[in-house]
Amino acid sequence: MSYLQKLRETTPLIHNLTNEVVMNFTANGLYAIGAAPVMSKALDEVSDMATITNGVLLNIGTLTSSDVEAMFLAGKAANKKGIPVVLDPVAAGATSYRLETCHKLLEELDITAIRGNAGEIAALIGDEQWASRGVDARGNGDVVSLAQKAAATFRTLIVLTGETDVIASEDETVVCRNGTPLLGSVTGTGCLFSSVLTAFLTLEGPAIEKATEAIRTYTVASEMAAEHPQVKGPGTLHPYFLDALYAITPEDVEKRLVR
Amino acid sequence: MSYLQKLRETTPLIHNLTNEVVMNFTANGLYAIGAAPVMSKALDEVSDMATITNGVLLNIGTLTSSDVEAMFLAGKAANKKGIPVVLDPVAAGATSYRLETCHKLLEELDITAIRGNAGEIAALIGDEQWASRGVDARGNGDVVSLAQKAAATFRTLIVLTGETDVIASEDETVVCRNGTPLLGSVTGTGCLFSSVLTAFLTLEGPAIEKATEAIRTYTVASEMAAEHPQVKGPGTLHPYFLDALYAITPEDVEKRLVR
Amino acid sequence: MSYLQKLRETTPLIHNLTNEVVMNFTANGLYAIGAAPVMSKALDEVSDMATITNGVLLNIGTLTSSDVEAMFLAGKAANKKGIPVVLDPVAAGATSYRLETCHKLLEELDITAIRGNAGEIAALIGDEQWASRGVDARGNGDVVSLAQKAAATFRTLIVLTGETDVIASEDETVVCRNGTPLLGSVTGTGCLFSSVLTAFLTLEGPAIEKATEAIRTYTVASEMAAEHPQVKGPGTLHPYFLDALYAITPEDVEKRLVR
Repeated sequence: MSYLQKLRETTPLIHNLTNEVVMNFTANGLYAIGAAPVMSKALDEVSDMATITNGVLLNIGTLTSSDVEAMFLAGKAANKKGIPVVLDPVAAGATSYRLETCHKLLEELDITAIRGNAGEIAALIGDEQWASRGVDARGNGDVVSLAQKAAATFRTLIVLTGETDVIASEDETVVCRNGTPLLGSVTGTGCLFSSVLTAFLTLEGPAIEKATEAIRTYTVASEMAAEHPQVKGPGTLHPYFLDALYAITPEDVEKRLVR
Repeated sequence: MSYLQKLRETTPLIHNLTNEVVMNFTANGLYAIGAAPVMSKALDEVSDMATITNGVLLNIGTLTSSDVEAMFLAGKAANKKGIPVVLDPVAAGATSYRLETCHKLLEELDITAIRGNAGEIAALIGDEQWASRGVDARGNGDVVSLAQKAAATFRTLIVLTGETDVIASEDETVVCRNGTPLLGSVTGTGCLFSSVLTAFLTLEGPAIEKATEAIRTYTVASEMAAEHPQVKGPGTLHPYFLDALYAITPEDVEKRLVR
Repeated sequence: MSYLQKLRETTPLIHNLTNEVVMNFTANGLYAIGAAPVMSKALDEVSDMATITNGVLLNIGTLTSSDVEAMFLAGKAANKKGIPVVLDPVAAGATSYRLETCHKLLEELDITAIRGNAGEIAALIGDEQWASRGVDARGNGDVVSLAQKAAATFRTLIVLTGETDVIASEDETVVCRNGTPLLGSVTGTGCLFSSVLTAFLTLEGPAIEKATEAIRTYTVASEMAAEHPQVKGPGTLHPYFLDALYAITPEDVEKRLVR
């Protein structure tokens, strides 16, 4: 059975400590693919949430000092329970506050995977060949070696997304090439993917396999949406992409896979 | 004249102290049906808002200690002015923080109605037959007796929504059966309904009648959207549901009513 | 070359300190037209953001005391760098907290432009002929003289939007009459315009010209969306309006201009 089918059978509940810009899209995307969201950054309850949730997503997109505290509490509760914790280092290179927060989270928590674009992953390892500008990535480095270097540095799974997607563990690398460029014009598509990745990582099986199926499912769904006759831009892509996440089957993924 | 028509004539202004996930959807939904939103949780102004608003919605979806304080201030100002206050106890059973906050709000404020799913209403009255899991409800109890028990316990109107919707006051019960299951795949449709209910409750007339028309209008609109040829999943349901709330007439409701 | 083309070539990065209701729509709208968003209200980084951003938008829609502090820090950093700062005084007349905050921002910062509806602009200058009710404007005053009076009072560019849009500097006034009334039923369309205006103001050229092209582009895009055969209400207007912002050309604007 595919991981996608397993996900839909278990409907993992993901605790998203994420930015205010993408909360609605993230919740709708998790429901669409077959998982379920909960969102709370309240210091009074973030630890307790781990008792009912199956995975935790930490996204630093709009960070306050209280949010950072909540992330440590939620992350530690998740580590204690043994459920996955995914870090999305949004615009990590934009300010020293973001970069330092990411490094602290990586030091003090057991992070299952880091999902970011090339600029963000480069910022984390201090690679200046890649320039981070706001939340978008620019640069021409070799994304495969970048992901591998980050995997070695942080000894965790790196899921680097962009035109080419790279999944790198300390001893294995997978490259994926599906997707539509239009997805980059919809805000939060990277953030939502980090939550979807967290949902896949809650399942039984090798992390790199689950991450690979997650990225393939997500990018193939984006292609299906982009080809819908009603979709002419980022505004219409949004609802049809959620529909595609809802409808996509393992067969769709298999059929459209770019090898 | 229907309550829907009266609502559109008076365009009640609803002060929503609601969660960050559903703010945009709530604002758009209130505009669509013919009401208007204002959203503020600032301690410096929540009491003052009551001077211009017609009803208050308290939704605990993403709660902080400052938000709780704001809810008491806004609720007390609304009680003093004599305008309706509706409580949406999102995921009340998920953490003790949520449950205790709900109980405090119910003790210290005059709550006009509680709108929740079966799991949430059960959590409020301590009924363990129903299990709450995150924001979704599970269980097989009798929703009618659950709503009636809650109405008797809190001496207020209970609007329990789900596959079957139950509206219960201390001495009257109405059961409604319209709607589409797809609505449950769009985040915030319960939350938005709580705001729409608040808008209906601002009108003159018996509370149970207004709540009944609110739920019928909302669920029939969801059916109209789900039947639209463009709607194939939760992504497309979202915009077409807002269009249906905008276009729906009392005749549409009458024609489709499941008795 | 049109300002729209220049904007798309330079993709200005706008730092939005804006309300929680419209964050997603604002980010998507900025991407759609060809700019880029960043959103942060964290006191630990708002000043640093100015090093990478090209303009700052201050929107008081959902204000907390921490947000106000962040606005001063971001505004001062922007003033020091010499990049535009736009104020959107959402519901300025609704509470004294909002009005006082606006006045303080206008006193202590160098504000490039104020974008609001008639009720909000009137509240700022204490004109009681216009009544502000929540975030919507009501009244029958003369919007041209209102905008001119505000421009003289605050010695800054006023962009007053509504059925008729007025752009007034201390010595020049432009009136625009494009747009669709349906836009008023989508929450955040005024807020998004303020961010789009900020993006146009980052370009080289006279402020009044840039603001005029911004409003014409935005309102013509709304007409194009409203005429799309799939658009039947505010729900569907939302995605098709974002598509129109993405697709619109200077020729579209020229062709549809109401003179």
